[in-house]
Amino acid sequence: MQDNPLITLTTDFGYEDPFVGVMKGVILKINPRAEIIDLTHGITPQDIRGAAFAIGTSYTFFPDDTIHIVVVDPGVGSGRRPIIVSMGHHYFIGPDNGVFSYIYRAGQETPEVVHITAEYYFLSNRSPTFQARDVFCSVAAWLSRGVALSKFGDTITDYHKIELPFASVSRDGILRGEVIHIDRFGNAITNITKADVERLFCSEFAPCKIMLKGREIPFKRFYLEADNGKLCSLLNSSDFLEFFLYAGNAAAECNITVGDAVEIVLPFVNKVKP
Amino acid sequence: MQDNPLITLTTDFGYEDPFVGVMKGVILKINPRAEIIDLTHGITPQDIRGAAFAIGTSYTFFPDDTIHIVVVDPGVGSGRRPIIVSMGHHYFIGPDNGVFSYIYRAGQETPEVVHITAEYYFLSNRSPTFQARDVFCSVAAWLSRGVALSKFGDTITDYHKIELPFASVSRDGILRGEVIHIDRFGNAITNITKADVERLFCSEFAPCKIMLKGREIPFKRFYLEADNGKLCSLLNSSDFLEFFLYAGNAAAECNITVGDAVEIVLPFVNKVKP
Amino acid sequence: MQDNPLITLTTDFGYEDPFVGVMKGVILKINPRAEIIDLTHGITPQDIRGAAFAIGTSYTFFPDDTIHIVVVDPGVGSGRRPIIVSMGHHYFIGPDNGVFSYIYRAGQETPEVVHITAEYYFLSNRSPTFQARDVFCSVAAWLSRGVALSKFGDTITDYHKIELPFASVSRDGILRGEVIHIDRFGNAITNITKADVERLFCSEFAPCKIMLKGREIPFKRFYLEADNGKLCSLLNSSDFLEFFLYAGNAAAECNITVGDAVEIVLPFVNKVKP
Repeated sequence: MQDNPLITLTTDFGYEDPFVGVMKGVILKINPRAEIIDLTHGITPQDIRGAAFAIGTSYTFFPDDTIHIVVVDPGVGSGRRPIIVSMGHHYFIGPDNGVFSYIYRAGQETPEVVHITAEYYFLSNRSPTFQARDVFCSVAAWLSRGVALSKFGDTITDYHKIELPFASVSRDGILRGEVIHIDRFGNAITNITKADVERLFCSEFAPCKIMLKGREIPFKRFYLEADNGKLCSLLNSSDFLEFFLYAGNAAAECNITVGDAVEIVLPFVNKVKP
Repeated sequence: MQDNPLITLTTDFGYEDPFVGVMKGVILKINPRAEIIDLTHGITPQDIRGAAFAIGTSYTFFPDDTIHIVVVDPGVGSGRRPIIVSMGHHYFIGPDNGVFSYIYRAGQETPEVVHITAEYYFLSNRSPTFQARDVFCSVAAWLSRGVALSKFGDTITDYHKIELPFASVSRDGILRGEVIHIDRFGNAITNITKADVERLFCSEFAPCKIMLKGREIPFKRFYLEADNGKLCSLLNSSDFLEFFLYAGNAAAECNITVGDAVEIVLPFVNKVKP
Repeated sequence: MQDNPLITLTTDFGYEDPFVGVMKGVILKINPRAEIIDLTHGITPQDIRGAAFAIGTSYTFFPDDTIHIVVVDPGVGSGRRPIIVSMGHHYFIGPDNGVFSYIYRAGQETPEVVHITAEYYFLSNRSPTFQARDVFCSVAAWLSRGVALSKFGDTITDYHKIELPFASVSRDGILRGEVIHIDRFGNAITNITKADVERLFCSEFAPCKIMLKGREIPFKRFYLEADNGKLCSLLNSSDFLEFFLYAGNAAAECNITVGDAVEIVLPFVNKVKP
């Protein structure tokens, strides 16, 4: 552990209530040296997939040994297990509800997952409805003080993974994916990555035909390259294919929502009926 | 004071403007060692009760000697006094408009309240409209550097308390309270606490009849215990009775607002006309 | 540079996505001693003027040697230059799109502006769409570690300035300005400052006639001085003339928007046709 161990927070708790502030108080009471960074608290309430995507595309930008608390937890208080995941020199703490699904498949490495049971490291007065405060933050603070992973509970292998929407190639040679996230600017992010296209087709997106809801969408390198008012696509900063409107809100103005189908077709491949 | 003294901020300043960032600049210019934590800046504009509730239910989760700045202050610039409250090993700084009313009655202890008058500890260029920056943050930073409480002004006893909505038992044996806050998830929090029910009726909420606007509402232990789409209640993480919809927004979908009447009736008590 | 160098962030990235959290990860990976403060991330998307105003009215409240990252950048990925501005013992890092226009004219001093070209200080995997992460944060972190300004690139003098709406006096002796910002409370901030009125007319706003859309608006010293429900004006905490409704939202209730014309007339000056 570092001198000033880093702890990040990702939740759907929003910014109107003191929930997040209280979580920080709990951490700093146990480890005054911890440095706490908000990844985001604006995950849509109960959107486990959204939280999984946020942490999955972000954690590598933090230093080794960072502890990431992720709490989107509709099942709080029920039997679902609190867990610590150790993976790629990072730690992840949260509910075993699939919120770490992108982490599990991120590396070559097999993650080590511990079922947190050592109540000694929980707050003494606990509520069944705020485990983020009473369990996750408390455990994270003790972990950041150097308590060994094995002290918190036993290793498990049957941790919960949610089925993530992966882009796949169908028999007709078309790469099919979908819109998985709309960001603050109205950009529509898909589950199709640079690697998908490189592996399957060629080294560049540009020669592909990119289809959204039956319409071909031009491909650009950056936002300003697009004409005003014209829906375009690019590879975003996490290497996902993304639809955007320059200086506009693509999702709102072009009526794009999570789940919309996206197809990538090589122009010289004839579409074959499956 | 600690090595890295902790200062929390609670305001209605929101997140769109640089108000809060500037407050932090002022603090760090005076005490670069201060650690600043946002409790929330999403208090409804001018909602003194909301701020009082937020700090009142949160401060105990922070370490001893934490300084809490709370600024919801419709009367800024007028005659109302700036104060420091010392209570239960915590300090509170803000306007004397009742925003610390939950603090005053929190412990057995009598709070020590100082009327801040020592302009020496204010910013030299002051605006009548931003005392949070020019007075409260500046004073908090000096306090965090170890300046004694008595240096900031004289002790007062006539500080302002707002009348908080307390649950009370009427002659007919019914515990009456009201909805006092709607949180980010649409949960409707009441002023009825676990202690109220224990003191008056029994050791558990469960055997009571919980009535909201004339309708009996089932009691659960945690959110997932409820049926989807059915309004339920539970004891929340601050031990207040709360109404919720599992995976829904109770306030919006069931039309619950602050001030709605709540009643707790023991099922075997006959309702007696007063 | 200080022991714990201070870096502030001002963006239009909002709070729903992990963009800002990732920026902090990048900084702390390079300089774990950096202290990062959010000025605001709620700038209206692509509103360069709004960001320029936010940083321009805020930076002096931070300690000397603070590094301010400001990213509102519709042209990200295109040819526009990344720059560092050194001015008045503060550093500013961001795109050369005019976002530092208030800084350039802030002091007597001439700013030193460096065109960032030293890719050695960028992240090695870069995206054309997220220079805030890959260039600005990385460069800020190295600057905060003491790398000399000259190491990042050459000094330029043709940096981009946007035309800011300045209050001006017309031939008829009327000081004309406009509304430039609506804040969280619905207060409408104009580009007319205390200094404008003092220089042109007299030492006080009070004797002037303040006109908004043809209607005379009373002048007050602080919010509570106004009658409920009556549109008033005051000098705000940054010394700009501001319109407000006590305990109300002036912009929404009185239909005020950015660009609305404001006039200041000395009552004893006869209006002369130009």
